[in-house]
Amino acid sequence: MQHIILDCDPGHDDAMAILLAVGNPGIDLIGVTTVGGNQSLDKVTYNARSVLEMAHATDIPVHAGSDRPLIRPLEVAASIHGETGLDGVTLPKPTRPLEQGHAANWIIDTIMGSEPGTITLVPTGPLTNIALAARLEPRIVERVKEVVLMGGGVHVGNWSAVAEFNIKTDPEAARVVFREAWPLTMVGLDLTHQALCTPQVQSRIDAIGTDLSAFASGLMDFFRKSYQNNQDFIDPPVHDPCTVAYLIDPSVMTTRRCPLDVEIADGPTLGMTVADLRGPEPSAKDCHTQVALKLDFDKFWNLIIDAITRIG
Amino acid sequence: MQHIILDCDPGHDDAMAILLAVGNPGIDLIGVTTVGGNQSLDKVTYNARSVLEMAHATDIPVHAGSDRPLIRPLEVAASIHGETGLDGVTLPKPTRPLEQGHAANWIIDTIMGSEPGTITLVPTGPLTNIALAARLEPRIVERVKEVVLMGGGVHVGNWSAVAEFNIKTDPEAARVVFREAWPLTMVGLDLTHQALCTPQVQSRIDAIGTDLSAFASGLMDFFRKSYQNNQDFIDPPVHDPCTVAYLIDPSVMTTRRCPLDVEIADGPTLGMTVADLRGPEPSAKDCHTQVALKLDFDKFWNLIIDAITRIG
Amino acid sequence: MQHIILDCDPGHDDAMAILLAVGNPGIDLIGVTTVGGNQSLDKVTYNARSVLEMAHATDIPVHAGSDRPLIRPLEVAASIHGETGLDGVTLPKPTRPLEQGHAANWIIDTIMGSEPGTITLVPTGPLTNIALAARLEPRIVERVKEVVLMGGGVHVGNWSAVAEFNIKTDPEAARVVFREAWPLTMVGLDLTHQALCTPQVQSRIDAIGTDLSAFASGLMDFFRKSYQNNQDFIDPPVHDPCTVAYLIDPSVMTTRRCPLDVEIADGPTLGMTVADLRGPEPSAKDCHTQVALKLDFDKFWNLIIDAITRIG
Amino acid sequence: MQHIILDCDPGHDDAMAILLAVGNPGIDLIGVTTVGGNQSLDKVTYNARSVLEMAHATDIPVHAGSDRPLIRPLEVAASIHGETGLDGVTLPKPTRPLEQGHAANWIIDTIMGSEPGTITLVPTGPLTNIALAARLEPRIVERVKEVVLMGGGVHVGNWSAVAEFNIKTDPEAARVVFREAWPLTMVGLDLTHQALCTPQVQSRIDAIGTDLSAFASGLMDFFRKSYQNNQDFIDPPVHDPCTVAYLIDPSVMTTRRCPLDVEIADGPTLGMTVADLRGPEPSAKDCHTQVALKLDFDKFWNLIIDAITRIG
Repeated sequence: MQHIILDCDPGHDDAMAILLAVGNPGIDLIGVTTVGGNQSLDKVTYNARSVLEMAHATDIPVHAGSDRPLIRPLEVAASIHGETGLDGVTLPKPTRPLEQGHAANWIIDTIMGSEPGTITLVPTGPLTNIALAARLEPRIVERVKEVVLMGGGVHVGNWSAVAEFNIKTDPEAARVVFREAWPLTMVGLDLTHQALCTPQVQSRIDAIGTDLSAFASGLMDFFRKSYQNNQDFIDPPVHDPCTVAYLIDPSVMTTRRCPLDVEIADGPTLGMTVADLRGPEPSAKDCHTQVALKLDFDKFWNLIIDAITRIG
Repeated sequence: MQHIILDCDPGHDDAMAILLAVGNPGIDLIGVTTVGGNQSLDKVTYNARSVLEMAHATDIPVHAGSDRPLIRPLEVAASIHGETGLDGVTLPKPTRPLEQGHAANWIIDTIMGSEPGTITLVPTGPLTNIALAARLEPRIVERVKEVVLMGGGVHVGNWSAVAEFNIKTDPEAARVVFREAWPLTMVGLDLTHQALCTPQVQSRIDAIGTDLSAFASGLMDFFRKSYQNNQDFIDPPVHDPCTVAYLIDPSVMTTRRCPLDVEIADGPTLGMTVADLRGPEPSAKDCHTQVALKLDFDKFWNLIIDAITRIG
Repeated sequence: MQHIILDCDPGHDDAMAILLAVGNPGIDLIGVTTVGGNQSLDKVTYNARSVLEMAHATDIPVHAGSDRPLIRPLEVAASIHGETGLDGVTLPKPTRPLEQGHAANWIIDTIMGSEPGTITLVPTGPLTNIALAARLEPRIVERVKEVVLMGGGVHVGNWSAVAEFNIKTDPEAARVVFREAWPLTMVGLDLTHQALCTPQVQSRIDAIGTDLSAFASGLMDFFRKSYQNNQDFIDPPVHDPCTVAYLIDPSVMTTRRCPLDVEIADGPTLGMTVADLRGPEPSAKDCHTQVALKLDFDKFWNLIIDAITRIG
Repeated sequence: MQHIILDCDPGHDDAMAILLAVGNPGIDLIGVTTVGGNQSLDKVTYNARSVLEMAHATDIPVHAGSDRPLIRPLEVAASIHGETGLDGVTLPKPTRPLEQGHAANWIIDTIMGSEPGTITLVPTGPLTNIALAARLEPRIVERVKEVVLMGGGVHVGNWSAVAEFNIKTDPEAARVVFREAWPLTMVGLDLTHQALCTPQVQSRIDAIGTDLSAFASGLMDFFRKSYQNNQDFIDPPVHDPCTVAYLIDPSVMTTRRCPLDVEIADGPTLGMTVADLRGPEPSAKDCHTQVALKLDFDKFWNLIIDAITRIG
């Protein structure tokens, strides 16, 4: 059983990550935390609560975190996720109230209050909350089990030629998170651009035939149009649940261990994740970071469809 | 009455700032918070507690904050403050225990729990805690009365040609703090290099004839040697209490309103505070920042000596 | 006798530098070179030739140099110098043709063809030509007598809060020039903002009663308006001839030896000249750069008026 | 017939580029220019002359260019090319003297003295000379036929995680060259790491049985050891002649048109070539730059072996 904190900014693919985390029996979703990113903090927090409501997961607490990056102003991704951050579906009103307290503090309290090596952080938005938590309580770094994040890319960008949205939005936070000593898996665009919601996949989602599957399919409809109109994709890449899928079953992707860093200087590479792939793969002892490279497409979508089906 | 939170890293001149805040009847020192800077967090936190003990101020709570800058590794100023951070005196063992909780959270709780416009932040170390607090709870920015900080310099540096230690140590935190909309007074090296502890001043401290005055004088002896050996000064500039002195009596210095920013790019100006002094002085409505320029030397030292005398 | 090459971008104050160099008997103006800066290369080259025509100095060759900075696009200073670069006067048509060959090559040939230690470079525009020359022929660095340039500022900027136009226009070229080992005097805004063309000064120019004095006075009229409208000055600072004045009579200004560098990172200090004024003044052996600090106002303007008078 | 100027810093693979250019009947090698890079300017210039001597090509003029990058100090690649820059072989003493004049000026004169659209620049070292030429005479940009350079990499680095030696050595020059409007083909590590001198290839070189083939084989022996010891390669990638091969027969590689830029900010990506491969391939009208992607290994080595054979 994987005990995870999902730190997200829903976001269509964040919503799919929530559904996968809620619906898969191998995942214990301890809580959801939110961060300004795809849309403003208010909107993504509402969205997270609403998706949990939709997934009958009102036992999951939601804590709101940072409304902006560490150093820079927030520029949201309305071109991809719309004005609400979850355009394209009708969101149920959440019945469970938002928790008190900042996400970073709740993350710290949860980690420090759990056995060492038991909690996994799964950030799928800008890394502001995680960086704040690491600075507020440095001891969490050796106490978490690992960090599995969606962000960055070795050979590809989407928010600039070589930078991905989550990392480019808060490059300084990303540098903090990448340089801390915890085991870190970067599930970046190299991997997630393989997680395409093809029409065949979407037909399988539709075939589930529940309100939730219709909701998920509605998300995918909007997401497809966004990616067709803005990113030269035919099918939308469903980035964020890849992290959860990896935790359910590591064989869903291949990874390679390599040094990773983040560029924070203003210039054409701002926010790029810098992977050093030269030479032979280092050992886990020498290198605490790895990147995801190749997705098992069928395994991945089977997990998603299974989770949506199980939630009912 | 000024209700202040002193966020510091004692540090010889920080110690003098504590004494001034404790001893002056116009200052209500709500609490002391600490940050890694002049020395490691552990050391400066012990020092803060010890100085409060020395000043019979065991009613003042101390909260420890960040042990390192937001993005960069900490490089302490051992060349100036010695291995303990307060070399040159014997420190009494603090009787009051350290408070629980991170300084940034305590700052937030204190500000949000007080009437708006009543609390003044007085940072005299790297601005890490203040930046963290502003990111964790953005509402503090409009709720504090003002920020009066020691750091930076318009025309002068001490940790590089044009950068001062506190700002250069955590330039990203400084950028956050300088760009937030609160009224901010930068008491930088332009001003504090006038606050020299001359032999005449030190004779007046000695003449007080208490254990505390001997303690203060011992601090100044070491500080003098550090500045003679490392910074080409004859008498040491006692930076940090200038902030508190300004809050006691604004006429202790002249100020000029001007836009201020902080350089965070790696290069010869890293950590420089950038003041735009071109053109006529802007109004408070157009510009929330000001710099201190000219010290009233006698007024300043009279306040210090008065405070040490009052503490007894 | 000072044998100088004036590398300029006229420009109202460049024009005054040309007049001073032509009219003063202690200066041997070997040639004028031009660089894109205050206006486009075509315009400033025409202006240089025209001012020499006006000064009956058709024996002076003019070589055009770089039309743009080393790395960055050119942004001219039309707000200060107008559309022609010398707005406000009627320019005589130059009779002497423009020389063939790039300014940088001519500078190299001239220096390498002269006795070592005899030629002084006097740049009063962006340092592109000088940097190119130093890269094309590194031996000029030890062969020139010295470099006396107008640009930068220790405590003041005009094209940003802390950067001056010439340096900010081509900061990379400035870094090259400042880091080469030649003796370099930076006559920056600290000094040139004292070289104000007051109404009293201008009356003295008018009183000369020649076509040339009327021309110079016309330049000053336009320059005054530019500085009043754009830079919050009452009287215009006549920057560029300060360099030539220093070479005629070093006592026209005080200088201080100190390390100098140029910031080239994109940020609020881009193009700043970084002077390290900490500690005692270094020796000429330890430090090849110095900055001009205090102008002898009367001596300076006496030189200008004398030169205009002599030219007739 | 391709009329080319080879701007190089021999360098083992530069030497192979010279041999290919001399020996192939489709190439008219107008001249060789040199630049400080793999080794100091003196050494690489001697090496270029010596390789031409070895190839009986004493009709080819050699002009030396810049001994250092535009802005930064030179750091040579002695770990790869040895102390001489061509370690591993005995170099014949060149009989033809070095030409007078800087490479950049000769490049300009050659281009401006030839018909428009007839001269191709082939830089295989740092781009200092080419950037200088473009700044000294901007008209060359539209007058050259094209620029085909070895340097950079889209998905790979060798001198840092993401930067290649030639570009990282003078990133500012590379930015100038990449941003000028000429047609530019970047033959980077993506391509050249396919140009491996395998033992089978080297046997074919040996089988030619001439002094020159033994010389080339000796170069490859040393180069193999360098790459085995320093870059985790089994066989050495022979970068530089790929440019010439492309000009002989474009079908030797596939290319893709895409925007290219160079990172010049100090940070982990300094000197990276930034390719924007998002979206569909732009037209030549919209995009003047392209990158080489896939090498036809056999075609490439056939060209090399043919050239060595022809030279005799």
